[in-house]
Amino acid sequence: MAPQRHTALEPVAWLLGTWRGRGKVFYPTIDDFTYEEECFFSHNGKPFLIYSQRTWDPGTGAPRHSETGYWRPAGPARVEIVLAHPTGQTEVSEGTIDGTSIDVHSTSIGATATAKDVTALSRVYELSNERLSYTLAMAAVGEPLTGHLRATLERAR
Amino acid sequence: MAPQRHTALEPVAWLLGTWRGRGKVFYPTIDDFTYEEECFFSHNGKPFLIYSQRTWDPGTGAPRHSETGYWRPAGPARVEIVLAHPTGQTEVSEGTIDGTSIDVHSTSIGATATAKDVTALSRVYELSNERLSYTLAMAAVGEPLTGHLRATLERAR
Repeated sequence: MAPQRHTALEPVAWLLGTWRGRGKVFYPTIDDFTYEEECFFSHNGKPFLIYSQRTWDPGTGAPRHSETGYWRPAGPARVEIVLAHPTGQTEVSEGTIDGTSIDVHSTSIGATATAKDVTALSRVYELSNERLSYTLAMAAVGEPLTGHLRATLERAR
Repeated sequence: MAPQRHTALEPVAWLLGTWRGRGKVFYPTIDDFTYEEECFFSHNGKPFLIYSQRTWDPGTGAPRHSETGYWRPAGPARVEIVLAHPTGQTEVSEGTIDGTSIDVHSTSIGATATAKDVTALSRVYELSNERLSYTLAMAAVGEPLTGHLRATLERAR
């Protein structure tokens, strides 16, 4: 039996579901490439979204980046995101909800001893015409906050 | 088709699978209680474990804590863990692998603006007689590093 959705999730309920689509990676230090993505937002009755995404090479199906964590609305217009990255970083990002648009910036990034140095992340998510698109900017390996990802996803089911 | 296991996962391969069991929560500031847990360790061919666990009230089935993230072996005897907690914390824990025993301590804990103050975590995992047991100690809300969780799990499948 699906648990009842917590009322605190109202401002982010438009994210719930499974999304699939394609994105592009770009950064000053690498060659651009495209990826396919599946991303999941669910809940268990508590006041947060359970989030995970995975991406893969469109040609070979080989896994690329993935990430997992939780999205916590903090009132009707703010959201807190806590994530783990298999590249050895943790991310706390916080920011605003404006209708079906979310804009967050990292407030804390942790890293394991062998992880690359990521100093800031910035994410914008937007639902428009039934499509969920996002952009991610990253400051890492000496580069300032610079566009890094852009993807557009559609509901898979 | 299941991907081939990365050779870097050899030291932690004994964790792979789905585990179920029961644990106990205790802390100076709360009454003890027990929980049921399911925990998953999988991989996608890359050199990390994909980890998630969820716990629930044994009586009502209501969800309690959960966490999700990645375990990264760093050579044969060290492991790095990156986790997100729905309570608003991120955790980087690092430490040693000794046979089927893992002992890690937090090196970085992040927190959202509305999260409780957790300052340190310490985890020991051990496989013995086909049972996976773990203990977790936590420094939080002004208490020093103090025992907080103890659980024993068995392979679910």
